[in-house]
Amino acid sequence: MKRIAVDMDEVVADVLPKFLTIFESINGRMPNEEEYQGRKIYQVPGGENLREALYHKGFFADLPLIPGAQEGIQTLLDQGNEIFFVTAAQEFRNSLEDKYDWLLQYFPNISWRNFVFCGDKSIISADYLIDDHAFNLRTFSGKGLLFTAPHNLHETEFTRVNDWPEVLAFFAQENQANGANR
Amino acid sequence: MKRIAVDMDEVVADVLPKFLTIFESINGRMPNEEEYQGRKIYQVPGGENLREALYHKGFFADLPLIPGAQEGIQTLLDQGNEIFFVTAAQEFRNSLEDKYDWLLQYFPNISWRNFVFCGDKSIISADYLIDDHAFNLRTFSGKGLLFTAPHNLHETEFTRVNDWPEVLAFFAQENQANGANR
Repeated sequence: MKRIAVDMDEVVADVLPKFLTIFESINGRMPNEEEYQGRKIYQVPGGENLREALYHKGFFADLPLIPGAQEGIQTLLDQGNEIFFVTAAQEFRNSLEDKYDWLLQYFPNISWRNFVFCGDKSIISADYLIDDHAFNLRTFSGKGLLFTAPHNLHETEFTRVNDWPEVLAFFAQENQANGANR
Repeated sequence: MKRIAVDMDEVVADVLPKFLTIFESINGRMPNEEEYQGRKIYQVPGGENLREALYHKGFFADLPLIPGAQEGIQTLLDQGNEIFFVTAAQEFRNSLEDKYDWLLQYFPNISWRNFVFCGDKSIISADYLIDDHAFNLRTFSGKGLLFTAPHNLHETEFTRVNDWPEVLAFFAQENQANGANR
């Protein structure tokens, strides 16, 4: 049994659509995708005040799922892995209940025992970490997988997974390699 | 620099007085100390419904400090250690904001980066864990210290610290041993 730590934002929960909507309401236009490739959308000119929204109650309550996340998590469970959701919630006091309720809603088969709200993920001990931030993978002692998000497109330091089917393909290969090593 | 993970309830935050008060309001008497030695107060006859209080908003908001906890944490910081508060908050959705606010109130010098709300502490990677529950120490890969609480008086499996001065004495000895090994 392997322990897989899974980040929330931009891995199972999609924050980008909400940011785009707020950007549009401020600037009267949608940003082009090229504008926020390799950086956060709040680093795009006109997006300076977007990050402030993260502190508001409710911001994280109604985020849509990343496509394939539910099926992906279920497949990893079916393969005998342990899943822990590990999210850097602690910067945002008002996100705690929202994130908790969101996980219960979309992943009712994952126990609260496996929810981790932290600030600094270097405290996490697991075999794998799937995360969209290279800085979280850099301090991780297990195997890190960089889940593609527009802001991390230029990162080359870690094994990249572009979507949930690629996550499953990675673990299928790991299982095969482990089987071959037996 | 060593990383020390510190549990909240019954290590820095005192839950017992509140439980005693609720027990008294239900049963018309205070339990004797012998009644809850070696077990949780909600395992004492008449205390069966006490645990339910943990689910109420506000239960964790106004807990008193364990004597010496603030000074103890400050001394460990001054000695160059890193402190992470690690609490099994996740069973109690309504405790999340209360615990967060409590930490900010009593330990304003510890960043939110170092708050961890989890369910199963086997996910924690640190050098030391100070906790009142043997089951948390059992799955911990670093050095575990059992912080004395009435319920754990019969535990003999781990290094015991009876109070915060004993925590500091333990680390003074560790520092001396590490110095001697250099």
